[in-house]
Amino acid sequence: MVQLTFSASEAERLAEQACRSAGANPATARSLATATVSAALHGRPEVGFPHLLQYLTGFRAGRLNGEAEPTLTHPLPAILHSDADGGTAQLGFDLAMPMLVASTRELGVSLFTQHNGFTTGELGYYVRRLAIEGLIALAVSNSPAVVAGTTGGKAVFGTNPMAFAAPLSDSHAPLVIDQASSATALVNLAEAADAGRRIPEGWALDAEGRPTTDATAALRGTLLAFGGTKGANVALMVECLAAGLSGASWSLDMADPQEGRRSVDAGMTIIAIQPRLIDEHFALRLSRQLDRLSAQGTYVPGRRPVHDNIREEEGVVIDTPVLEAIRRYLPGPE
Amino acid sequence: MVQLTFSASEAERLAEQACRSAGANPATARSLATATVSAALHGRPEVGFPHLLQYLTGFRAGRLNGEAEPTLTHPLPAILHSDADGGTAQLGFDLAMPMLVASTRELGVSLFTQHNGFTTGELGYYVRRLAIEGLIALAVSNSPAVVAGTTGGKAVFGTNPMAFAAPLSDSHAPLVIDQASSATALVNLAEAADAGRRIPEGWALDAEGRPTTDATAALRGTLLAFGGTKGANVALMVECLAAGLSGASWSLDMADPQEGRRSVDAGMTIIAIQPRLIDEHFALRLSRQLDRLSAQGTYVPGRRPVHDNIREEEGVVIDTPVLEAIRRYLPGPE
Repeated sequence: MVQLTFSASEAERLAEQACRSAGANPATARSLATATVSAALHGRPEVGFPHLLQYLTGFRAGRLNGEAEPTLTHPLPAILHSDADGGTAQLGFDLAMPMLVASTRELGVSLFTQHNGFTTGELGYYVRRLAIEGLIALAVSNSPAVVAGTTGGKAVFGTNPMAFAAPLSDSHAPLVIDQASSATALVNLAEAADAGRRIPEGWALDAEGRPTTDATAALRGTLLAFGGTKGANVALMVECLAAGLSGASWSLDMADPQEGRRSVDAGMTIIAIQPRLIDEHFALRLSRQLDRLSAQGTYVPGRRPVHDNIREEEGVVIDTPVLEAIRRYLPGPE
Repeated sequence: MVQLTFSASEAERLAEQACRSAGANPATARSLATATVSAALHGRPEVGFPHLLQYLTGFRAGRLNGEAEPTLTHPLPAILHSDADGGTAQLGFDLAMPMLVASTRELGVSLFTQHNGFTTGELGYYVRRLAIEGLIALAVSNSPAVVAGTTGGKAVFGTNPMAFAAPLSDSHAPLVIDQASSATALVNLAEAADAGRRIPEGWALDAEGRPTTDATAALRGTLLAFGGTKGANVALMVECLAAGLSGASWSLDMADPQEGRRSVDAGMTIIAIQPRLIDEHFALRLSRQLDRLSAQGTYVPGRRPVHDNIREEEGVVIDTPVLEAIRRYLPGPE
């Protein structure tokens, strides 16, 4: 596939202009462009520019409020609650983040919870930023129901991701875990079906709710949670914290982020913890432990250098079809 | 197997006397007896009276400090830290719980973290009690390394359980999730080996670090995390929160709770959240959602009536061999 490489600031400008043209106000466009480039540089590629298209079509169709003005309330000292006003999850979080960081430093732990937002994009983005501030962070969000809680059951949970980050001795290379509660992503079923490959047991059910290893049958059926019942319990916990606590829609009730005009009403909850109170050398101690785990052959996720100030030398790679689709949102030459 | 049924208060008296005779001070004995009966009534049976034996031998051998006087500190308003003084995890938590509940109600979220404790017993016990107080709670604890983080890797994580509870409309029947990060318990490998049954893929590795479905080979090898890499990441997150944050030993460095005289130094961390700030009807809304999930065929864990005041009519069933082993700790007739 043909790809083009942009500098990070060029890529950010491109994303911001596309958002503005699609109907986003300056704050929304800026916030989403930063998140998109961060995901492209530090997350999985598909949650960067390819995912931006879902936001752009959302702005145009009106199911994502580009003019959103989130309302932040502070019902108790350690709790921040955001009504995202039907807009992006990122904007509500950006507005809250300075208070969340200050409150966590002052109290030791604080919680941000948001309803009435769009799906969160790369969930690792939020916790990565908090870890760069020296905080441990746990984030959860819910999304439209595509995962069955039990074999034979209907789809009741979203892919309901969980992200976790902790600061390490190199403060710009935190530990970052970011994973869905589903055993796999829909795109992996589609790829296996195209290639005529079977899928592992435990990934999906067919349309009748039976376990299947046939990728085509799985595409007409339902995803399963990772690790059977234990993973389904994780999806349920995410649902309680992301949707229950925030007041957002349950995954079963969410609107489709890709169709229609109805606001998605996804929820997101983030817990931030100050780890230096108990051990001022927490980051160093955890770094040494992760080195030791790696030396014993254990895979340790995350831990790549993160650039909080986007730098020119970082290249953002965008596939040509994605780039063309994004450029269609830009205003033509006058 | 022959079993005897005791009233809850008889069972509690039995546990308390056995703890006292094994060397526990009154506060430790009382705290552990309450937890043991609660686990027997509300948790899995094996974490009740059968597990009490591990504490009793621990007191006798000196690796579990029966004379513990935990030190509670309060470094920031929303953080409580306990040094369990080499004693039971339950006593440190009991001393902290009133402050944890008060602080969570006042600030919205609070965190308890403890090092230098014994393994936690039934982890659901802690979050169940907080849910009865109307709080959401997430608890994690670590334990000696028996779980490999990667196929081919060595055991680096404990069974590192996670427990989650949330209040429901019947305040004495909360939602409770309580599960290990390991795919299965060692006892299940032993049972399969005895019965000559094969074990499912993904449960364990053999002594050479290769995946195995042979239960006997698995017993000589290493457990795996549930759900592959995603479950191993959960075990790592638990390790960061339970051991890293608290200052306890990493699972790799913990002493054996069943052998020797060295203190175990397990860690435990609990986050408590006040859910009624954002939606005063949180418990009712979550109850209705769980009803709906159940109606769709989804298994919903927990949610059994919990008796915070142990009542006479609740029967505690104890297997005769366990009962005899416990009674050996009691003083003989004068």
